[in-house]
Amino acid sequence: MHIGEQTVRAFCDQVAAATPAPGGGAVAAVAGALGASLVAMVAGLTRGREKFRDVEEVMAAAQEAGLREAGALLELANEDQAAFNQVMAALALPKGTPEEKAARRQAVQEAYRAATRTPLETMEHCLEVMRHALAVVAQGNPSAATDACVGLLMASTGFEGALWNVAINLGSIADEAFRQETMEKVEKMRAEREEVLEAFRSLVPDPVERFLKKQ
Amino acid sequence: MHIGEQTVRAFCDQVAAATPAPGGGAVAAVAGALGASLVAMVAGLTRGREKFRDVEEVMAAAQEAGLREAGALLELANEDQAAFNQVMAALALPKGTPEEKAARRQAVQEAYRAATRTPLETMEHCLEVMRHALAVVAQGNPSAATDACVGLLMASTGFEGALWNVAINLGSIADEAFRQETMEKVEKMRAEREEVLEAFRSLVPDPVERFLKKQ
Repeated sequence: MHIGEQTVRAFCDQVAAATPAPGGGAVAAVAGALGASLVAMVAGLTRGREKFRDVEEVMAAAQEAGLREAGALLELANEDQAAFNQVMAALALPKGTPEEKAARRQAVQEAYRAATRTPLETMEHCLEVMRHALAVVAQGNPSAATDACVGLLMASTGFEGALWNVAINLGSIADEAFRQETMEKVEKMRAEREEVLEAFRSLVPDPVERFLKKQ
Repeated sequence: MHIGEQTVRAFCDQVAAATPAPGGGAVAAVAGALGASLVAMVAGLTRGREKFRDVEEVMAAAQEAGLREAGALLELANEDQAAFNQVMAALALPKGTPEEKAARRQAVQEAYRAATRTPLETMEHCLEVMRHALAVVAQGNPSAATDACVGLLMASTGFEGALWNVAINLGSIADEAFRQETMEKVEKMRAEREEVLEAFRSLVPDPVERFLKKQ
């Protein structure tokens, strides 16, 4: 069953089972989807109010992106599970003859590419959520400020969780050009994520400072 | 409907709606539940194998804790939503007469206490998940290492998300003794979370370093 159609409890149970999938890759994508949903929520609570008229366009874009990215990330959660199963199936192929060995090797490499591409896409989508999350943290309705912050943190964790999965799968790929290309994308995205996180931390240094110390 | 019984997609949709609940508090608790489920998974993939016999007890404890904490955190996700609705209901009480004003004030303060206690409990449970996550990162089956890492990160984000909610609600509470007591608990837990995160970062400094640079 598609992860999006499982109940939250059933998905937790399936993750908790002593089987390798669904695991961290699917959870990372779901974290991104939850972050995207919070971005859409805060943007929606900001739009259409006179006092936030100046940021209407930014919030319309954030709401639209949040809804779109939540859907895309639930698909990626599902694909991650499928990609992992493809790796398992390839590893289980026969390796008796030299022909079988060569065919298995090719199938395994192809499966690891898919299992690398899926979390790489999750990283891209989580980064897109983070960009909009920063906008709603900075300019969204202050009564929903904590929701915006949690949205940004969830997307950031989805990014990091997906990165772990890219890294472990890329480690099994022999094709040096594919490795290089993937690493370049990873490093570029990590640099932008750091920028977003830095901007976030400078906007809202600490929840205790923000709400409690100034009273 | 209980959050645990909603589909993952329906929960995302409810979060994304332009209504204040469910919001970041519920999402933080769900993040903790997903982290707890990953801890249970990795512990389960480690148990009962000859080569991991030395850590059998640690893993049995982690598996049991992961399953228990996932259940507790789903309840807290649900309670967070209810606590928020209680605040809204209290704020909507009449305030025409001095008696009404006093009754409303008391109801609002009581509601904010509940809305503070729920995420405070979420923080406690997420911290418990983090302790066991650190054990499975350090001693669990290395083939599930990335799942253990994502589990720790999810619980850590659940902790931080809940902290935002404690902070914003505590900011509305007049009772100085309650504020003090809560802040002491918060600071103690934050210090332990930092220790766990530091131990984690020193065990597994960076996914790219871990899997890619040494090849």
